[in-house]
Amino acid sequence: MKRSLSKAGFLGLWLAIASTTAAAENSLPSWNNGATKSAITSFVATVTKEGSSDFVKPADRIAVFDNDGTLWCEQPMYFQFLFALDRIKVMAPQHPEWQDKEPFASLLKGDVKGALAGGEKAMLEIVMATHAGMTTEEFNGIVKDWMKTAQHPKYKRPYNQCIYQPMLELLAYLRANGFKTFIVSGGGVEFMRPWVEEAYGIPPEQVVGSSGVVKFEMKDGKPTLMKEPKVEFVDDGPGKPVGINRFIGRRPIAAFGNSDGDLQMLQWTAAGTGARFCLYVHHTDPEREFAYDRESHVGKLDKGLDEAKSKGWTVVDMKSDWKVIFPAK
Amino acid sequence: MKRSLSKAGFLGLWLAIASTTAAAENSLPSWNNGATKSAITSFVATVTKEGSSDFVKPADRIAVFDNDGTLWCEQPMYFQFLFALDRIKVMAPQHPEWQDKEPFASLLKGDVKGALAGGEKAMLEIVMATHAGMTTEEFNGIVKDWMKTAQHPKYKRPYNQCIYQPMLELLAYLRANGFKTFIVSGGGVEFMRPWVEEAYGIPPEQVVGSSGVVKFEMKDGKPTLMKEPKVEFVDDGPGKPVGINRFIGRRPIAAFGNSDGDLQMLQWTAAGTGARFCLYVHHTDPEREFAYDRESHVGKLDKGLDEAKSKGWTVVDMKSDWKVIFPAK
Repeated sequence: MKRSLSKAGFLGLWLAIASTTAAAENSLPSWNNGATKSAITSFVATVTKEGSSDFVKPADRIAVFDNDGTLWCEQPMYFQFLFALDRIKVMAPQHPEWQDKEPFASLLKGDVKGALAGGEKAMLEIVMATHAGMTTEEFNGIVKDWMKTAQHPKYKRPYNQCIYQPMLELLAYLRANGFKTFIVSGGGVEFMRPWVEEAYGIPPEQVVGSSGVVKFEMKDGKPTLMKEPKVEFVDDGPGKPVGINRFIGRRPIAAFGNSDGDLQMLQWTAAGTGARFCLYVHHTDPEREFAYDRESHVGKLDKGLDEAKSKGWTVVDMKSDWKVIFPAK
Repeated sequence: MKRSLSKAGFLGLWLAIASTTAAAENSLPSWNNGATKSAITSFVATVTKEGSSDFVKPADRIAVFDNDGTLWCEQPMYFQFLFALDRIKVMAPQHPEWQDKEPFASLLKGDVKGALAGGEKAMLEIVMATHAGMTTEEFNGIVKDWMKTAQHPKYKRPYNQCIYQPMLELLAYLRANGFKTFIVSGGGVEFMRPWVEEAYGIPPEQVVGSSGVVKFEMKDGKPTLMKEPKVEFVDDGPGKPVGINRFIGRRPIAAFGNSDGDLQMLQWTAAGTGARFCLYVHHTDPEREFAYDRESHVGKLDKGLDEAKSKGWTVVDMKSDWKVIFPAK
């Protein structure tokens, strides 16, 4: 009797393993089989296995994702910057003074490189001119409109569809396994919130990002939140663990990034006790997407790549690990 | 046949209403029947009724709660300040210089009033001395230890049990109806997060509060978040809608407070389109709790009380609306 129970138990275990593997297979169809996919599914199996010493209760299954270059494309330039350039053109008729004032004058002549010769100061002026001086609700509407009309120069599809299909599957797979998924991005929090819920299934309150100062004002008896031309918080590099602490208040057990700007987030995640998972998306696919790392001006991945190797973090080789890049049109 | 179907339909409707009322009755057992309780349950019935013009989809059912004086007691002083005073005593042996330095010298002699003669500057010095200079994790542990050992002077129970039973039921009732509940408090976010999940069922990532600057540092190769003695954000008054925008990113449909410091949060909530619910807890019970409003130094409720009356917001009369104040020991 005991022996037959044990056989049944063994069969049950085997079935459980087989069905977990099948479930992972079904959940991550755009990931090629191999070490990368296995690393993901075995981490998830480890932390969700009740009774195991590495079990993590659902409330603590916090997973954080960088956005630019990790969930959506960031080439040929950060999309938020392309948004700002489009806005400059739209706003120019109301700003005749821009015709003779840098960096706007160069931009309006189509000379982005010339405009950016002004460095960080020029960049900041462009962002502030396009991201402040309106209410938060007005800005929300502007971003939504842009997403409906603008197109990526290479892919000829809206920017909110230049998102990575394998990462969408990964987000859904983690959530199906009790994880709460957060964006932790250097991008503007108010630039992301209007569209990420539809794109990634991540609600606004789970988006951490850079922000400008916002001020509460009564306008004709109506309470209003005005966006001011002043940086409040830069959620990049060492700012990412700070942002995680501020907004989420617990340490993630899994972190996903693609650049040196994500390194401190991965370090902070890895330094917690218990099972941890850190992953870098490495852009290695010049044909289907882009190939860049150590020398890139956008999404530079240099120190992070070394640290990933030395610490055994998972590195996605986009070209060989991903069956498709973007969702089907 | 038609007539009998209609009768069945009518019966079904009646049963549905009766069971909803019964459910609310069961969910809010510590609330006396009357206008206040009815206002709560009819708002919830309105926004959760599919097909109605006031229906709100679950993702948008955001409810925000002040903490001090709304979810837990705030007399005779804000509990976080009592925590700081306790910490000064514990830390004093390591700070011999405090014996001759205000506001610490007065505090160590037990003269709180004398210490606070230094006004806001003195208050800030006390908070900074006790809330900075350690890692976020160390501070978390200190708060947890204090909650285990400290007792409220009047109620002789731990501070995290000086919470309002009727509000606990309200939080649970809203969540059972698809709401996501957030704390939006003037209190320190890192002071609240260690205990609010157990006390209120609100996870750390749904806590918005005041904060100090936190800095990421590598210490002996270990990533660390250090608490610095510098105010970052004051989540009070006009800061509350700003904090809601920053952390939550959508406008609440229900807001609960007890003081003028919550007024802008209630105004911001009320000014959205569709059904809205604003509630003030009015402390009217000197025997079971405290009675205070327009003249109080802690939790002053003056302008808010006028605005609640003029706008028809719900005002809890603690003495007559609540059957009990605190959870049973």
